[in-house]
Amino acid sequence: MAVPIILILAPLAGLLSIVLSLFLAKMVIKFDDGNEAMQRVAGYIREGAYAFLKRQYTTLAIFVAGFSIVILLVIPNAITPGALNWQQFLAYLLGSAASSVAGYLGMIVGVRANSRTAQAATKGLAAAFNVAFFGGAVMGLAVVGAAIVGVSVIYWIFGDPAVVLGFSFGASSIALFAKAGGGIYTKTADVGADLVGKGEFNLPEDDPRNPASVADNVGDNVGDIAGMGADLFDSYVASLVAAMVLGASFTGSFPAADVDFFVVLPLLVSAVGLFATLIGIVLTKFQTKDNPGKALNNGTYLTTLVFAGINLLLTLIVTTVGELSAAGAQKVWMNFIAQVMGLFAGVMIGITTDYYTDDSKKPTQKVAASSEKGHAMVILAGFSYGMESVAAPTIGIVVAMAIAWALDTVYGVANAAVGMLAIIGTIVANDAYGPITDNSRGLAEQGGLGEEVIRDCDKLDSAGNTAKAITKGFAIGAAALTVLALLYAYAHEAGISSVDLLSGPTMIGAFIGAMMPPLFSAVLVKAVEVNAERMVAEIRRQFKEIPGILNGNEKADYAKCVDIATKGAIRELVLPIILSIAGPLLTGILFGTTSLAAFLAASILTGFIFAIFMSNAGGTWDNAKKYVEDGHFGGKGTEAHRAAITGDTVGDPFKDTAGPSINTLITVMSLTSSMFIGVFAWFGAGAGLIGQFM
Amino acid sequence: MAVPIILILAPLAGLLSIVLSLFLAKMVIKFDDGNEAMQRVAGYIREGAYAFLKRQYTTLAIFVAGFSIVILLVIPNAITPGALNWQQFLAYLLGSAASSVAGYLGMIVGVRANSRTAQAATKGLAAAFNVAFFGGAVMGLAVVGAAIVGVSVIYWIFGDPAVVLGFSFGASSIALFAKAGGGIYTKTADVGADLVGKGEFNLPEDDPRNPASVADNVGDNVGDIAGMGADLFDSYVASLVAAMVLGASFTGSFPAADVDFFVVLPLLVSAVGLFATLIGIVLTKFQTKDNPGKALNNGTYLTTLVFAGINLLLTLIVTTVGELSAAGAQKVWMNFIAQVMGLFAGVMIGITTDYYTDDSKKPTQKVAASSEKGHAMVILAGFSYGMESVAAPTIGIVVAMAIAWALDTVYGVANAAVGMLAIIGTIVANDAYGPITDNSRGLAEQGGLGEEVIRDCDKLDSAGNTAKAITKGFAIGAAALTVLALLYAYAHEAGISSVDLLSGPTMIGAFIGAMMPPLFSAVLVKAVEVNAERMVAEIRRQFKEIPGILNGNEKADYAKCVDIATKGAIRELVLPIILSIAGPLLTGILFGTTSLAAFLAASILTGFIFAIFMSNAGGTWDNAKKYVEDGHFGGKGTEAHRAAITGDTVGDPFKDTAGPSINTLITVMSLTSSMFIGVFAWFGAGAGLIGQFM
Repeated sequence: MAVPIILILAPLAGLLSIVLSLFLAKMVIKFDDGNEAMQRVAGYIREGAYAFLKRQYTTLAIFVAGFSIVILLVIPNAITPGALNWQQFLAYLLGSAASSVAGYLGMIVGVRANSRTAQAATKGLAAAFNVAFFGGAVMGLAVVGAAIVGVSVIYWIFGDPAVVLGFSFGASSIALFAKAGGGIYTKTADVGADLVGKGEFNLPEDDPRNPASVADNVGDNVGDIAGMGADLFDSYVASLVAAMVLGASFTGSFPAADVDFFVVLPLLVSAVGLFATLIGIVLTKFQTKDNPGKALNNGTYLTTLVFAGINLLLTLIVTTVGELSAAGAQKVWMNFIAQVMGLFAGVMIGITTDYYTDDSKKPTQKVAASSEKGHAMVILAGFSYGMESVAAPTIGIVVAMAIAWALDTVYGVANAAVGMLAIIGTIVANDAYGPITDNSRGLAEQGGLGEEVIRDCDKLDSAGNTAKAITKGFAIGAAALTVLALLYAYAHEAGISSVDLLSGPTMIGAFIGAMMPPLFSAVLVKAVEVNAERMVAEIRRQFKEIPGILNGNEKADYAKCVDIATKGAIRELVLPIILSIAGPLLTGILFGTTSLAAFLAASILTGFIFAIFMSNAGGTWDNAKKYVEDGHFGGKGTEAHRAAITGDTVGDPFKDTAGPSINTLITVMSLTSSMFIGVFAWFGAGAGLIGQFM
Repeated sequence: MAVPIILILAPLAGLLSIVLSLFLAKMVIKFDDGNEAMQRVAGYIREGAYAFLKRQYTTLAIFVAGFSIVILLVIPNAITPGALNWQQFLAYLLGSAASSVAGYLGMIVGVRANSRTAQAATKGLAAAFNVAFFGGAVMGLAVVGAAIVGVSVIYWIFGDPAVVLGFSFGASSIALFAKAGGGIYTKTADVGADLVGKGEFNLPEDDPRNPASVADNVGDNVGDIAGMGADLFDSYVASLVAAMVLGASFTGSFPAADVDFFVVLPLLVSAVGLFATLIGIVLTKFQTKDNPGKALNNGTYLTTLVFAGINLLLTLIVTTVGELSAAGAQKVWMNFIAQVMGLFAGVMIGITTDYYTDDSKKPTQKVAASSEKGHAMVILAGFSYGMESVAAPTIGIVVAMAIAWALDTVYGVANAAVGMLAIIGTIVANDAYGPITDNSRGLAEQGGLGEEVIRDCDKLDSAGNTAKAITKGFAIGAAALTVLALLYAYAHEAGISSVDLLSGPTMIGAFIGAMMPPLFSAVLVKAVEVNAERMVAEIRRQFKEIPGILNGNEKADYAKCVDIATKGAIRELVLPIILSIAGPLLTGILFGTTSLAAFLAASILTGFIFAIFMSNAGGTWDNAKKYVEDGHFGGKGTEAHRAAITGDTVGDPFKDTAGPSINTLITVMSLTSSMFIGVFAWFGAGAGLIGQFM
């Protein structure tokens, strides 16, 4: 394909974003990082985070190296490797490198912004908010910048969206490790620290005597910063590549110049989203006076409006001064509406999600109230609200999908996904803000900064939770549309024109695909259980063998706990990774490429349900516990509180390990399917070893 | 269609079954019903059960009357009602009547067999086993007999499988009320009785001082006998009608005589299954000496083998002496294999299900072990095993489906479902055996029959649990294949040749359909929570206002608790019933008939997952609690025991309300779709109000 010169906007926007990210990083690091005690603990957290990243990247390097060789020798052209092999090989390496570097940068700043936020809080809420917000923005801008530069450069060089698939697959490999691994890590430490520290020795949260306290703080960073960044990098790139592949599918039915433009349109829209994000970040800064939670959400709404405005302008320009045919220009307008509708739908889904997890709303308060009736009733209440919460986002997706499809069928849906993800920089920034303020609270406590500072840090932290509810719903909605677009892209690449559910092999694929998300969730929840047990044993050992820990005379061996969380997280990753790659491979090989399309579609359906159910049930339990701790239904120390804690502990691996990893699972399965199309052709001419006889 | 004379075998087998059922009923009632105390409590249980049935049937009568008028005036031929209208109207009334009568007969005997089993246990285990087993067999034989007579008579009179759809829809209406309503009832009473009785006043299980103890025993009967009977009546009839509709679809491609035979083949196979069931019931009687649990399971295996044998004979006869063409005979052979494979797959699924809930196996023991680590860990362990347990039955369905499809595509799958359900009489009998022995234990305790008798009743009860694990998995597997066959039947009736997941409206239907089972489950779990709260309030009131209850001087007001459970169960049914009918109607009206097909397919996928997950997680928690109570991990009264009870209480509405009601939900949605095809044609020519513009 020829590459329209206007594409230059995309890498330029990306570079601008990276530069701004580096600038913010430098700015944040210049802030005062507090007294000696804070520096020391922050140092432990930093070391722990680096230790995890180092081990994770080492394992990843082996995995990526192995897989890249498979790509080079086998995947795209199975029998006689051709140009696509080495191109995708390169793209795959670049994709995994770009995602890793962006994640690394975000982490470097994240684990430094925590103590600086605490220290800044001594000068007031607004100052502290800025440090935390900019600290998070570093990650947001780095992720979006690296993704957009990577995708546009690769497309510029090779002129083929199929090569970009390799880049996306690289990003997905990282995301699977970072999100699922980080999720296991963070909940291993959290659950282990709570079970022994709170449960057996009555230590408060973040108590430095708890040997797992540092691991717990490290977990927040590796799960919510590095993991979430890699996850959204992955979704973002996947939505771009799916829309590009589908744009290229109009070859023959539109003039070549039109098609060339359709392919780069998603990248341009993302560049627009990036500009809107930059403006949104600047505007957010000026609203911090009253309510940090509102400031974050208003920032998101503003960014949405700015995006719609600039995108309108871009569409006006390209359709009037560009060289599009009349039909081509009309198509661009249709997809402009799809993009804006996608983004609005994303925000709407986020807001309805918020309803189920906000403690000023009925669901969370009812769950909190049921804590008076015992452990089982808390679980049942959170469980039923979690399942009920699936309805509203489903309707959101249905509306977005109906409009996008009516506008321009599969390409419309892909553009709705691109529109939804266009402001992902803001979403990542708001999400990374969370662990920074969460850590800052602990550091303020350990640095002895006084009640008022701790209260300010608490305010910042709870603002992060409010923002997180919306961004989480948003991410799930965006992922659903993205994987739908990936499904269409897969079908296009595999030459499948219909996936008929009335056909046996297709329905078989659907049954297997539907099973994947619950099975994957089971494996991840079990991984947390197993690894938390190891952590529990180690904490008990330390309290027993080093009796001075409890009275503060001796130092707990934080490093040992960090090491257990790290090693365990990587070890427990093996099974989920095998599942996510073997599932689509076996289905494709046994039942053929069409069956595999149904596999993907069904995994989207159940994945969407389980992701929402687990995230929202977990969020409701978490906030119900906080609501009880705020003094309702007896408050701390009562039986009701203990029941509420049970809900929170059950919800932990739901909302921070399994739930959010499902997005990644489905993206990985979709991309694996697309990458292996050439291989599936070996078996029963694409109908599968068994499928050919059905 | 012409009706082959050989069909006469089916109503004859059905009549034989009904006669035998009545004979067994009379025989069971003749047994000694124990001492005065037992008679009194059994009387309360009987009254409570009748009170519930009366109210349920009254509400049902209104619902059925209303719906039958809609059928008469509107449904089959929407614009100008024709013959099909009054025929389906009649069939609908007959279907609901047949299911109600069978359920009523089963209940009459069930609530009488309990005290008689307890009394027989004074003469030894074998005697007691026979009373309980024959008591359950009354229900099994009544259900199968009424179903097969009803379907064959209606087909004989009208010669049109579409009329039988009305009969099936009538059975489904009853099942929805009986299964979901009974499920709410039983867990309202169980959870309420446990929370106050055990939790607040330390009363043991079945203590007559607990005002909800009678309601609890009534619940076992209305949930596990009446509810389950109606549910399996529903699945059984649905599998028959689906296979008959698909058999008729060969008109044109086979000689008329062949097609006539294909339509009645499912009925003949069911007649064979019924003979096998009768033989199995007789053979079970002779093996009771050593181990009642093994006797029940061996009965199931024997019935399976006998079925395969007689079915082989039938197939040999009809293909050699019958008037089938060569191609027709070959088709019958293909479907013979599909039927036998279906049944074997059902048994295999049952056995793997057993693995997850049997306390001699790893999952249940691990869940029990995690009770030492607290409430949250029990929940997480049961939850992850529940999700994991989805994998094996999925593979079972995939294997059955792959073979059946390879043999004869949609008709093959329908015949696999028919084969799986052919021995349903045995399954219902084994299931109804459960509450009878469960009740008998309580009655033995209240009648003061001594330690040894109670221990024997316990043995019989636990045998029921072992058998139940297999029958439950079996029922879910059979339901999955049945609703698949119903989906094909719907598509055939609606003239849909392809349900393409790559199309927007189709994918929208799939999203909505996938949402239904979790939403329905949420509503049912919430119904139990709400109604259990009413029960808790009432029990507390009685203990407060009638202080003599606790020291045994005054009688608790059992009737009031029974009344609360009854009224609440019916009231909380409104929302799930609206959901199950409005879901498919709205999807069909808004997005068209093809979208609705995808809706059904997706609801099968998620319904299958949620049904297995909820049933197995609940079963594992239940047995893990019993394992702890048997003295492991500290045994009764410990913290571990309390944590295990939490798991059991959470699992109660999972395994006895929501999980098993999902089958019924999906059948009702499938049949609603088939019945309303004529109505959907009004909207956008079948493409839907919104779908026509997509």
